[in-house]
Amino acid sequence: MYAVDLNSDLGESFGAYRMGNDEAILEIVTSANIACGFHAGDPTTMRRTVRLAMEKNTAIGAHPGLPDLVGFGRRHMAITPQEAYDLVVYQVGALMAFVKAEGGQMQHVKPHGALYNMAASDAGLAEAIAQAVYDVDSTLILFGLSGSELIKAGKKVGLQTASEVFADRTYQEDGTLTPRRSSKALIHDAEQAAQQVIRMVKEGKVRAVTGKDIPLQADTICIHGDGPKALEMAQQIYQRLKEEGISVQSMR
Amino acid sequence: MYAVDLNSDLGESFGAYRMGNDEAILEIVTSANIACGFHAGDPTTMRRTVRLAMEKNTAIGAHPGLPDLVGFGRRHMAITPQEAYDLVVYQVGALMAFVKAEGGQMQHVKPHGALYNMAASDAGLAEAIAQAVYDVDSTLILFGLSGSELIKAGKKVGLQTASEVFADRTYQEDGTLTPRRSSKALIHDAEQAAQQVIRMVKEGKVRAVTGKDIPLQADTICIHGDGPKALEMAQQIYQRLKEEGISVQSMR
Amino acid sequence: MYAVDLNSDLGESFGAYRMGNDEAILEIVTSANIACGFHAGDPTTMRRTVRLAMEKNTAIGAHPGLPDLVGFGRRHMAITPQEAYDLVVYQVGALMAFVKAEGGQMQHVKPHGALYNMAASDAGLAEAIAQAVYDVDSTLILFGLSGSELIKAGKKVGLQTASEVFADRTYQEDGTLTPRRSSKALIHDAEQAAQQVIRMVKEGKVRAVTGKDIPLQADTICIHGDGPKALEMAQQIYQRLKEEGISVQSMR
Amino acid sequence: MYAVDLNSDLGESFGAYRMGNDEAILEIVTSANIACGFHAGDPTTMRRTVRLAMEKNTAIGAHPGLPDLVGFGRRHMAITPQEAYDLVVYQVGALMAFVKAEGGQMQHVKPHGALYNMAASDAGLAEAIAQAVYDVDSTLILFGLSGSELIKAGKKVGLQTASEVFADRTYQEDGTLTPRRSSKALIHDAEQAAQQVIRMVKEGKVRAVTGKDIPLQADTICIHGDGPKALEMAQQIYQRLKEEGISVQSMR
Repeated sequence: MYAVDLNSDLGESFGAYRMGNDEAILEIVTSANIACGFHAGDPTTMRRTVRLAMEKNTAIGAHPGLPDLVGFGRRHMAITPQEAYDLVVYQVGALMAFVKAEGGQMQHVKPHGALYNMAASDAGLAEAIAQAVYDVDSTLILFGLSGSELIKAGKKVGLQTASEVFADRTYQEDGTLTPRRSSKALIHDAEQAAQQVIRMVKEGKVRAVTGKDIPLQADTICIHGDGPKALEMAQQIYQRLKEEGISVQSMR
Repeated sequence: MYAVDLNSDLGESFGAYRMGNDEAILEIVTSANIACGFHAGDPTTMRRTVRLAMEKNTAIGAHPGLPDLVGFGRRHMAITPQEAYDLVVYQVGALMAFVKAEGGQMQHVKPHGALYNMAASDAGLAEAIAQAVYDVDSTLILFGLSGSELIKAGKKVGLQTASEVFADRTYQEDGTLTPRRSSKALIHDAEQAAQQVIRMVKEGKVRAVTGKDIPLQADTICIHGDGPKALEMAQQIYQRLKEEGISVQSMR
Repeated sequence: MYAVDLNSDLGESFGAYRMGNDEAILEIVTSANIACGFHAGDPTTMRRTVRLAMEKNTAIGAHPGLPDLVGFGRRHMAITPQEAYDLVVYQVGALMAFVKAEGGQMQHVKPHGALYNMAASDAGLAEAIAQAVYDVDSTLILFGLSGSELIKAGKKVGLQTASEVFADRTYQEDGTLTPRRSSKALIHDAEQAAQQVIRMVKEGKVRAVTGKDIPLQADTICIHGDGPKALEMAQQIYQRLKEEGISVQSMR
Repeated sequence: MYAVDLNSDLGESFGAYRMGNDEAILEIVTSANIACGFHAGDPTTMRRTVRLAMEKNTAIGAHPGLPDLVGFGRRHMAITPQEAYDLVVYQVGALMAFVKAEGGQMQHVKPHGALYNMAASDAGLAEAIAQAVYDVDSTLILFGLSGSELIKAGKKVGLQTASEVFADRTYQEDGTLTPRRSSKALIHDAEQAAQQVIRMVKEGKVRAVTGKDIPLQADTICIHGDGPKALEMAQQIYQRLKEEGISVQSMR
């Protein structure tokens, strides 16, 4: 039987600012990546989101990002591996305290935005991040781009890893995502996205933009819930996975 | 035999900015209150300070403050008890992760600056802070002003508490500190400060500025290390305590 | 002939976070109070909002707030008059640069949130703020609560002032707003709000919650545009003012 | 007769954190680059530093940086030209308001740290920064690395420019600075630094690390004052320039 995890970025509100459809997306996903106050989120939002995820029985993960609130953690910054280590320890710890205070347990860590992308290709950063996660709690699962340096680093330090794939993004022949600046980067059709996901889960393959099939590991699928269209696509993917007999469940 | 803990605020550097004499003061104190990134400190400074305290065998505590870096957490802010709860959980968790990553264990929590002062007299804030500490780890010791609402709240939620007294500050008849705006607020003479401390530890009393003796519990003494004069006074107090046969040891 | 200015707080988005209905509210108001990056707003949002206001021919003002982004500048902070002076100079200057870069001219300054409220009753803060505005540009108009210390301070330092009244808030006998915690604080009915405004403009009076009429100066009316209901009320007030032959125009 | 400007980065304190020897270095330099609150500095520090520079009759410039306080603006960030434009307008405006409030006039703008370095080689960023300065005040002088894209961009938009050279850094054959990671990057000997500067001013040449002479324009020399050794070197360079009959004066 096939199984896959669905994850989404949650808790991205900040103070008086609201972002995302956390309640609706929590009906679908099995793993919640909760922002930790650097690129998004604040202590109050973190507590509320942890509580909400626990009510919905969704596994909880920390979603640490770069210290760039105005840029939402999406702008590359030339941080050192040591700085990456330190900011991951800090943010994972902060979220973990809310999970403990609410009587829950943290499942995973998934870096956010530019930190995620930098850790996909930069082995030094990837190892620093993996080591940080391991040092805080060696039973945490590290989420990273399938085939990335981050997944390699996670295995190397002794962490359980979850290889992430994308439903609404296309792939290049080398297994990396087509950059967003390309017109072919995004999949807008929900059925096409669902088909890509089903094949990745069942066959471990995806058709690259060049037309060639490439191998891929699909432990967890990244789902977006911001905006009515994204939410609808997420719901359709969830529905199609069920129809195909693929069990949707968290990594634990 | 008499015993007392000496504590000091450490890890207050931020990025390229240096503050304090952490190495020197760690030779004296038995408990280190480490800033957590809101009023001072940053992830890298936190890691370094935790490591340094462990090398010196000093007990480690979190020193959470208000989100006011430019004001160094010294300006009162009208935060709600819920906001106080949330920012304490966040900061305690962040520091705890560094302590775990370094293989240590956290001993205590002491709020900083305006948060400390507000929690001394505001029962609602005090209970929120005590509950936050308890919810993250019920074995932590809560440090608060001797006789304050924070100490009462700590006992109420079931935490071990440590009543703090000051060596270089004078007291009023109601047991509160003489406000800094008063010319009598500070004790500048090291021997006088040492005498006050010795009496607080041995007799549980302090002479208020009015001349009247008032009762006081002295579990831990706040020591300042910024500036050569403060450091010298700290060294002299430490020396005098030893001469008086008072054991200087952490709360555990 | 009667005339009044309508003002609203704009440019409150921050980075990826959206707030308010700036385009819609700019069709109604004659003065825009633009956030300056401390409690809300960021450089990019400031430039866009200045440009938008100029396209709509709306007079532009700076809306400086406390350095409390997560609290949206709504939490009282114990800042000194000197600190208030400094943060007003800073924020007014930052916005003024965008106005100059776009070829416009700044009309006014209105403090935000807790800074506005503190300056209404604290003469020391009020004078510091008024002096800051004067020192940056003595031709700016200072907006403050009708009858407040801020209006007094503005006149004292030699600034032109605009006394602000509220359409959707009730008043107490001493001319201050009924605190929000009271059930009578808000006026939810648009026609009632319009009636209150019309009387304030034409007769210089408002009926306090006690039933007694009190005098008031109504140079400018604060309008809220966040949420469809607020926008609707704003539109209805605008419409009713026109029907009553009251000219809606900026302070210049 | 030869003349050159000496500039230094000042006003880099932040809240309770002190940095630099502003008073001492102001005895030497003729142009002060004052931090604007993004990478360093805060409103109170800015006011104080502007006042101090005016007392010492030193020309004042804005020193805008990246929004990275913990990294002191030294870490490259992938900002867009539009973002660079916006953050320069904001910061220049903020400082300009303090200069106006103190009755002075701003002379120049010099980007800080990573922003300076990025603008030296990235023509798009350089033009955005130059345009921002021009749009706020077209009479400002733009300081940039001699031979850099920033100097080219300044000339292109119609600004007066000042080509900056370094006393304590070595040069490569292409006119760029030897990267700091190289052991040859820094000149530690004050007389050697002075000799380099004198030749740059008098002959418009510098000997690159390869031994080859390269042309260079030296309108202004960057001086560091942090630490006793840096201050001493600054004083010696100043002394030697005078001995060589080179007039030390601001750009105006």
